[in-house]
Amino acid sequence: MLGSDVLADRFVVTDLANVRYLSGFSGSNAVLIVGRDPDDDVIGTDGRYRDQVAGESPDLPTVIDRDTLLAITADLPGGTSAIESTLSIGDVERLRAQQVVTIMTTGTVESLRSVKDEGELAALSSACAITVAGFTAMAAELRPGMSELGVARRLEQLFGELGAEDRAFDTIVGAGPHSAIPHHQPGHRALQAGDLLVIDAGARVDGYHADMTRTFVVGVEPAGWQSEIHTLVHRAQADATAAYRPGADARSIDAIARGVIADAGHADEFTHGLGHGVGLRIHEAPLLGPRSTGTLEADMAITVEPGVYLLGRGGVRIEDTLVVTDTGPRILTEAPRDLVVVG
Amino acid sequence: MLGSDVLADRFVVTDLANVRYLSGFSGSNAVLIVGRDPDDDVIGTDGRYRDQVAGESPDLPTVIDRDTLLAITADLPGGTSAIESTLSIGDVERLRAQQVVTIMTTGTVESLRSVKDEGELAALSSACAITVAGFTAMAAELRPGMSELGVARRLEQLFGELGAEDRAFDTIVGAGPHSAIPHHQPGHRALQAGDLLVIDAGARVDGYHADMTRTFVVGVEPAGWQSEIHTLVHRAQADATAAYRPGADARSIDAIARGVIADAGHADEFTHGLGHGVGLRIHEAPLLGPRSTGTLEADMAITVEPGVYLLGRGGVRIEDTLVVTDTGPRILTEAPRDLVVVG
Repeated sequence: MLGSDVLADRFVVTDLANVRYLSGFSGSNAVLIVGRDPDDDVIGTDGRYRDQVAGESPDLPTVIDRDTLLAITADLPGGTSAIESTLSIGDVERLRAQQVVTIMTTGTVESLRSVKDEGELAALSSACAITVAGFTAMAAELRPGMSELGVARRLEQLFGELGAEDRAFDTIVGAGPHSAIPHHQPGHRALQAGDLLVIDAGARVDGYHADMTRTFVVGVEPAGWQSEIHTLVHRAQADATAAYRPGADARSIDAIARGVIADAGHADEFTHGLGHGVGLRIHEAPLLGPRSTGTLEADMAITVEPGVYLLGRGGVRIEDTLVVTDTGPRILTEAPRDLVVVG
Repeated sequence: MLGSDVLADRFVVTDLANVRYLSGFSGSNAVLIVGRDPDDDVIGTDGRYRDQVAGESPDLPTVIDRDTLLAITADLPGGTSAIESTLSIGDVERLRAQQVVTIMTTGTVESLRSVKDEGELAALSSACAITVAGFTAMAAELRPGMSELGVARRLEQLFGELGAEDRAFDTIVGAGPHSAIPHHQPGHRALQAGDLLVIDAGARVDGYHADMTRTFVVGVEPAGWQSEIHTLVHRAQADATAAYRPGADARSIDAIARGVIADAGHADEFTHGLGHGVGLRIHEAPLLGPRSTGTLEADMAITVEPGVYLLGRGGVRIEDTLVVTDTGPRILTEAPRDLVVVG
């Protein structure tokens, strides 16, 4: 299947997203062996998924065993087995103890996954459309007094009603000073008039993850400093978005947004990378940050999410998921980006 | 801190639950170095968590770097570093490339974590109490026509209203034939009169995970086969629960439930282990299954969750979280276990 990509006699795939990508099987325990000869392909899981694997990967012989990795590699005919760099050292040692000769590979399937095919883009588009509709419905319901947690659970419920199989990741809702914590875990704080409110959430459809952030202000017209950092982040996002093109350098795109923010004196208050690929995982290749290498390709699905976080006061992040195309970025989470007053 | 437990000069802790257990830091990116001399302890994370780590681990020096593992190990003074068997082979190779000499350890912190202290038991008790209250409120709302997804999101919302920080794991709701799929992902199927309905869910409080399952029947009195397998699973659960005592053999306890179910002719329809530890993860040591080794100890928190799954028809699972004590199991998810008609 992977042929001469890998200098090994087979590829033992253990990353669950990679297994799903190559085989269609979506269970939470799986090992896929891809042989040089497709007749040697086999998939393993445990008894909980006996019927699911037969339905999702009908053409693959199966090994059903609670200790899936050891069972599926127990009777290999010698030769070398490529393994993924994400496999644990403990599992590598267990393989070696049963005489499996391993060669480590890094990012082989992740690289394939970074460029999406038509079916994947359809699932992502659907997940993003549900996400936008969920944000829109949620914004209309926001009121002072609601808790961050209440907003998070309600938004996830809306995603479900709109057709999502689940949230794409732990929903982030940060109000007031919490909006300055990029990965704030929503808590019992109630929304208050004058709060900046960051909502970072996404829906999942057919295993594909949407990612979107909007920042609101609660109850009253924004204060000067709030408008100022929002306008700044908005501009950084727009300038960077325009640069998402095939052949563009990942680090250079990050530098565009970072430069806009640094020029306004907030360099130290944009504390994370500009973006990341989305697909069968919420964070996948490519990464766009100050240390990134590599270039974008058509049909990559990537976020663009600059932010400015003023500790103790509040923060702003604006994030979209887009697809890189030859004719410019195609935004999948198209929705207004201005600082809307809610509640 | 760990002293002579480990034949190394320091312990590089990378499992996030283990880092949290030892340091209090709950971010999603963390590496903790525990030195032989406590003055050598240090914790690493990235810029997103700069303030959080200072708040949660105020006594530890910090390293803030996106590539946390390499940064925190860049200037070690030689000697050997114990690593965890869950660390990826890719990260192990990166450590070796910067001259870190590693020794693999397995389950060192996991073993400590399996026995809970008073604070941990309080968090687990709170998570379980919220879970029970959520199940009770949800059962009163169940109606034919609700979708599995609608039930899952509503139950998670109830957990939040009752004080949970989040769900403990992806909520399982399986109706009708889906109840026979132990790890069914809730979908758009509507509850129908006569369905068996398995709900497996839990709340999370202060990082501690509750786990509970009840099986209902929708709208009408249960059919004979439904009552029969429910009674069987109920009995298997009761018999096994009574055996959760300090010193009891993990495999033997699993065998009690498995024996009850096998004697009734359903050996092949109980397709998973009997239980697992819960704590900072939803699945942790000890595991109770046909291949388990080891014995229970006082203050372990463990599930007891036998099931019988009749493919294409329906299934039953009954699950509680309990604490092992010298005076017998203390059930944290105490709630009726009979086959209640809902809707």
